[in-house]
Amino acid sequence: MSSETIELSGHIIDSWTLPRAWDVIMDRGGNFTVEEMRIGIHKTEPSYARMRVEAPDDHTLELILTELQQFGAILVDGDDAQTMAVEQAGVLPASFYSTTNLPTQVRVKGQWVQVENIEMDVAVVIDAAHKRACTRPMHEVQVGDQVVVGHGGIRVQPFERARERESFAFMQSSVSTEKVKVLAIHEIARQMRETRDKGGKILFVLGPAVIHTGAGHYIAQLIRQGYVHVIFGGNAIVTHDIESALFGTSLGVDLRSGEQVEGGHRNHLRAINTIRAVGSIEKAVAAGLLKEGITYEAQKRGLKMVLAGSIRDDGPMPGVISDMAEAQKQMRAALPGVEMAVMVASMLHAIATGNVLPATVRTVVVDINPSVVTKLADRGSFQAAGLITDAELFLRELAEELSE
Amino acid sequence: MSSETIELSGHIIDSWTLPRAWDVIMDRGGNFTVEEMRIGIHKTEPSYARMRVEAPDDHTLELILTELQQFGAILVDGDDAQTMAVEQAGVLPASFYSTTNLPTQVRVKGQWVQVENIEMDVAVVIDAAHKRACTRPMHEVQVGDQVVVGHGGIRVQPFERARERESFAFMQSSVSTEKVKVLAIHEIARQMRETRDKGGKILFVLGPAVIHTGAGHYIAQLIRQGYVHVIFGGNAIVTHDIESALFGTSLGVDLRSGEQVEGGHRNHLRAINTIRAVGSIEKAVAAGLLKEGITYEAQKRGLKMVLAGSIRDDGPMPGVISDMAEAQKQMRAALPGVEMAVMVASMLHAIATGNVLPATVRTVVVDINPSVVTKLADRGSFQAAGLITDAELFLRELAEELSE
Amino acid sequence: MSSETIELSGHIIDSWTLPRAWDVIMDRGGNFTVEEMRIGIHKTEPSYARMRVEAPDDHTLELILTELQQFGAILVDGDDAQTMAVEQAGVLPASFYSTTNLPTQVRVKGQWVQVENIEMDVAVVIDAAHKRACTRPMHEVQVGDQVVVGHGGIRVQPFERARERESFAFMQSSVSTEKVKVLAIHEIARQMRETRDKGGKILFVLGPAVIHTGAGHYIAQLIRQGYVHVIFGGNAIVTHDIESALFGTSLGVDLRSGEQVEGGHRNHLRAINTIRAVGSIEKAVAAGLLKEGITYEAQKRGLKMVLAGSIRDDGPMPGVISDMAEAQKQMRAALPGVEMAVMVASMLHAIATGNVLPATVRTVVVDINPSVVTKLADRGSFQAAGLITDAELFLRELAEELSE
Amino acid sequence: MSSETIELSGHIIDSWTLPRAWDVIMDRGGNFTVEEMRIGIHKTEPSYARMRVEAPDDHTLELILTELQQFGAILVDGDDAQTMAVEQAGVLPASFYSTTNLPTQVRVKGQWVQVENIEMDVAVVIDAAHKRACTRPMHEVQVGDQVVVGHGGIRVQPFERARERESFAFMQSSVSTEKVKVLAIHEIARQMRETRDKGGKILFVLGPAVIHTGAGHYIAQLIRQGYVHVIFGGNAIVTHDIESALFGTSLGVDLRSGEQVEGGHRNHLRAINTIRAVGSIEKAVAAGLLKEGITYEAQKRGLKMVLAGSIRDDGPMPGVISDMAEAQKQMRAALPGVEMAVMVASMLHAIATGNVLPATVRTVVVDINPSVVTKLADRGSFQAAGLITDAELFLRELAEELSE
Repeated sequence: MSSETIELSGHIIDSWTLPRAWDVIMDRGGNFTVEEMRIGIHKTEPSYARMRVEAPDDHTLELILTELQQFGAILVDGDDAQTMAVEQAGVLPASFYSTTNLPTQVRVKGQWVQVENIEMDVAVVIDAAHKRACTRPMHEVQVGDQVVVGHGGIRVQPFERARERESFAFMQSSVSTEKVKVLAIHEIARQMRETRDKGGKILFVLGPAVIHTGAGHYIAQLIRQGYVHVIFGGNAIVTHDIESALFGTSLGVDLRSGEQVEGGHRNHLRAINTIRAVGSIEKAVAAGLLKEGITYEAQKRGLKMVLAGSIRDDGPMPGVISDMAEAQKQMRAALPGVEMAVMVASMLHAIATGNVLPATVRTVVVDINPSVVTKLADRGSFQAAGLITDAELFLRELAEELSE
Repeated sequence: MSSETIELSGHIIDSWTLPRAWDVIMDRGGNFTVEEMRIGIHKTEPSYARMRVEAPDDHTLELILTELQQFGAILVDGDDAQTMAVEQAGVLPASFYSTTNLPTQVRVKGQWVQVENIEMDVAVVIDAAHKRACTRPMHEVQVGDQVVVGHGGIRVQPFERARERESFAFMQSSVSTEKVKVLAIHEIARQMRETRDKGGKILFVLGPAVIHTGAGHYIAQLIRQGYVHVIFGGNAIVTHDIESALFGTSLGVDLRSGEQVEGGHRNHLRAINTIRAVGSIEKAVAAGLLKEGITYEAQKRGLKMVLAGSIRDDGPMPGVISDMAEAQKQMRAALPGVEMAVMVASMLHAIATGNVLPATVRTVVVDINPSVVTKLADRGSFQAAGLITDAELFLRELAEELSE
Repeated sequence: MSSETIELSGHIIDSWTLPRAWDVIMDRGGNFTVEEMRIGIHKTEPSYARMRVEAPDDHTLELILTELQQFGAILVDGDDAQTMAVEQAGVLPASFYSTTNLPTQVRVKGQWVQVENIEMDVAVVIDAAHKRACTRPMHEVQVGDQVVVGHGGIRVQPFERARERESFAFMQSSVSTEKVKVLAIHEIARQMRETRDKGGKILFVLGPAVIHTGAGHYIAQLIRQGYVHVIFGGNAIVTHDIESALFGTSLGVDLRSGEQVEGGHRNHLRAINTIRAVGSIEKAVAAGLLKEGITYEAQKRGLKMVLAGSIRDDGPMPGVISDMAEAQKQMRAALPGVEMAVMVASMLHAIATGNVLPATVRTVVVDINPSVVTKLADRGSFQAAGLITDAELFLRELAEELSE
Repeated sequence: MSSETIELSGHIIDSWTLPRAWDVIMDRGGNFTVEEMRIGIHKTEPSYARMRVEAPDDHTLELILTELQQFGAILVDGDDAQTMAVEQAGVLPASFYSTTNLPTQVRVKGQWVQVENIEMDVAVVIDAAHKRACTRPMHEVQVGDQVVVGHGGIRVQPFERARERESFAFMQSSVSTEKVKVLAIHEIARQMRETRDKGGKILFVLGPAVIHTGAGHYIAQLIRQGYVHVIFGGNAIVTHDIESALFGTSLGVDLRSGEQVEGGHRNHLRAINTIRAVGSIEKAVAAGLLKEGITYEAQKRGLKMVLAGSIRDDGPMPGVISDMAEAQKQMRAALPGVEMAVMVASMLHAIATGNVLPATVRTVVVDINPSVVTKLADRGSFQAAGLITDAELFLRELAEELSE
């Protein structure tokens, strides 16, 4: 039998951390003995538990400890985080520690150090000299990087269930379509106002249906009012936005009459071709060619707009990043300061954003298709509140609420 | 080889009637010879085709003719519609003619007579003495009823594609979620205003999500403004409506705060129990117990409200019809005068309504789930325009548009 | 401040009962003091907690206690369950106790008595003389019935998370479509075999898509092999089953070629008409008219088949119950002995069955549409394991697995 | 008034070409006069129509002609296709002709020349000297390329409805989930066998759910049997395939037990890291490290496998193309010879493939989510037959059918 002693503290009972930890141990075939337990009698008091975890073998114990760490467990006998040097660029040591998107600390020379730019599924590189630690995606590690391995000296701060009336709480219960959505939208509006007013950044991730459904001008309005600071999207959203600015159509459908005025993709291709001829979106704005829409407003206000290409793109539109490694790098670079993320009618870019977003960013995913929300949660973005509703009518209501 | 000569006339080319007729003949293994064809050269002129249809056997020919009838084909050598007397109550002659939901005429004593109260999948009973014909569901036929059999002497008026700018046309293309829905909603509002103003009746078919999402008061407003004349629904919509009027909740969720204030179904059961104690909805209104909501407004204005029970019902609420034959009878009785039907967030009652609704009633189905629209179309209500959107936000927009 | 002392015992920590109880208290604005707590140190030992629950007022306390009861909390100072006599047939005392679908006991003359035929959202009637208690739907209570009110003297046995490797566990996590379904199907097969072999009854709830997709013969096979004991369905499943037995089609589509051979509902109506002419399904089987299919096999083996009509029905087919109160009564009567329920491609009847099914019946819901599973869970059938897959291919695999 | 005379010939009535052409003209506000019409009296005879199309202005006429071209209309007074030289690399002349995915010819020096490698939404470049024409995406055009502009001298061969019993026909009707799918699967199997046996290539487009649901080995079997010649996918499918080959898991779920054995993405990252350490998939196979699975079999048999990265990728796995322009180029290069395409559980790559696939390639899209099929059709891949079913059970049935 292998064993290890761990500690858990905080709201480990009312945040269900302790029972979940016990589940993990038992589901994995381990066992445990509670050595000490102090339960907060009133709701504001934290609890504490120290327990010995046993498993039939080292591998199982390791699995158990890996999972317990996500609940905030730390090894009692823990020492500094162990590291190994990268020997081949873009290749991690086999036993590398793979992050979650929760706030994480590593012990460096006896001191707990916050891991910078936390995101899920990447490595942690330690700069012992400066007592710093930061995340690094596999393909970016360099020879000599000191990568955290094993799970000693790592502390993850679990997601505590909000006790006080939590704003997004009423959405987090389930992916139901039968709830009062206007209330949820007003709450999102309230949070956006609060975030903006205290100087936090708001990220919008947008899919092309925002334009197809004629809702682009609501986003444009939100930008003008200072509610949007970063935009992530792809070739389609920017192309249809510019198509609608230049020709009044989206995929050839006149956004004012709802009628098909041009066959399918032609205006869309014309929009790309027009901007390619000028050279760039910036030049199109400067030349007075592009005079409205999301892209125009974003350009005017100097917003960070990261447009990541995809294999299904036509064109592409100038400004769309064709190389995925580069696009991810730019997305990561745009995240510092983001405190809220609103993802509308986008699956690909919503999941991509979820991959690089810390769990502490308030995230809401709006889509008419419940599977988008399910998929995002399945891929680890558990913190995202899902709102199954119509993107167009959502944005209309949101813009109206925020225009007051 | 069996054969028969048929005629088609009207906008048989631009309504695609002729090519569809040819498809049917050939798909079924038949063949045809065009004996005469006159094509309208300009778009306003009707066309005419007479052709000999051949099939390898009588059964195949019959199948072909049955289908061609739905496109408006009539037998050149046609005589009066044939009838057979019902010999056993509730049982039709084996070769009975089964209706479509399209306007239909039968030839009675050499004269084309309109079939009254047309709906799909029922029999036609002829009263030769008075030269009248009307539909009758299988279980309602009585011994001696003269039921139309075969397909001679029957003329169906096909659904002609609207040539002039058709209001619902832009919705009819497909079950897409990526269209500008505000335009569609405004068009529906325009049609409702037009229908009301010329004295036509508007039918609303409502599912309980209308209440769960807090959208009941929009319907109440539409009733007060005279935009609703008939309501079809079930136990759930009426019960949750009354629950919300009495307790401010729907399924225990406070509609003003979005919070669960009562465990699940308790308030719902209390609402039913309260009305049962008083005796009926009418008495609850009269006693001043029920003072708001859809049911209250409907009661106040004397609307026809047909509430058909279902196997999943609790209670039931007084006024909900427990017997399905009786409920269908009341639904049919409420239809005369209905010129427009709006079905919101209801699958069961929407399909049930589709079954008894003539194709000439403008029908729009609003649901966040595309499968509802698909199912309705699969079950023969091809005329229904589908709007895949959020019921709550749809009603909000509709009520706002109509309040002006 | 109002207060009450409660006890919880059993696997209240690893079944998450205790943290959920605390959540409820705090979410509702109450507070608690743990008076005694004994935690099972090893996984097999039960735990115990006694705590004082406080709330700002009586109403809140009552709400809290109502919810805690669902987790198995009992009042320490509890006395016998209180009852009030029904004064009006079909109307409950206002403070009636509304059941859950969990095993429930009531204290009658100092003794805990099991409530018979437990199901959700109904009343409990006590026969003190015989120390018996049973559920009764609101509309069936008679004047003089002693109905349980309040929440003293009631003990609910919560759903404990299975610790040992639970067969349905891997499905219960979420409504995901991205899991290895063959494993789940084999597990369902194993459970069916086990249930049959020990004499338990298996209930199948079937929607018409089972026939439309040509999967009816798999059910027929399962019936022949003794894997089906009770069938719940509606007019559509029985009609299309008989349509396919008589004419080889379902909704007019030839099930062997996939081709439309008859226009829409005609064969379906012919099937109903044929059976109506004979008088009943029993007579049709006896007369050798009906010779295969689900209904035939069910009839042959004397299965209980409850066919509940609905407002969207044509016909109906003889044997389909038109009155909803009667249909619910027959469904309830067929449940004793049922230990497993498999619901395939049915929404209406699955929800209706969930309403009357105890939580202890192993339940699996199979549908290609995730919303069916979500809706069932939303309506209180939390115990149902959802399998999002193709009904036809599911039944094919299940039948193949069980044929060995 | 502007006008032009056009001709249509072939099965223009039974393929509904003529009525659709008239619709277009009238929907756009134009008018027409039929100058000559000859209708094939029997089903095998082609028809012919010559008509004068009028429109209120040149722009409208152009729109009409553009659409009519897609139905195969040619200008009677047509001359050679007009071209303009590209003046700026990657930028097309403003009036460039944008292709459909239908077979297309252009008139070069009085002779109709087939456009090579037809796909939708690209330009046509003419090499007049060699009387050749080929498609070129916007971003690949070079200065001096002679690009077709306007719509003279262009002939599109419309999609004629198959008259004889068409194999995929029964699937093409609608996105219904209520059909006999086993028949469709057997038909797909038959077509695959036929395609393989006559030397045609079969393309599979695969999403990661193929691996998550444990269906990877069915694809591996199909590869071994020679039924797969080209594979398109992304980072996820190849990574999970290799994860399952190396560790027996997909996203950490053991594919033999269905249990989570590793936390989320860890094994997935380990799989990528392992291959990165070796250098490439080829080396991993050569070194005996990778011994089973889709990638292994593809490698062994020298299949063309184009793996296009996406913004949501971890890693990426060596061999996954990070640059979208390069990935599209490789997809295009792999298409010649492909006669059938089977897309399973993939949205992104299915749409991307649809973009570059000629309409003449038989295409079937298999997904449990109807919206994938709808989206593909919305984006122009009208020829794709949709099968709404479970990918895992589909592949199981397909592999079983083809193993015989």
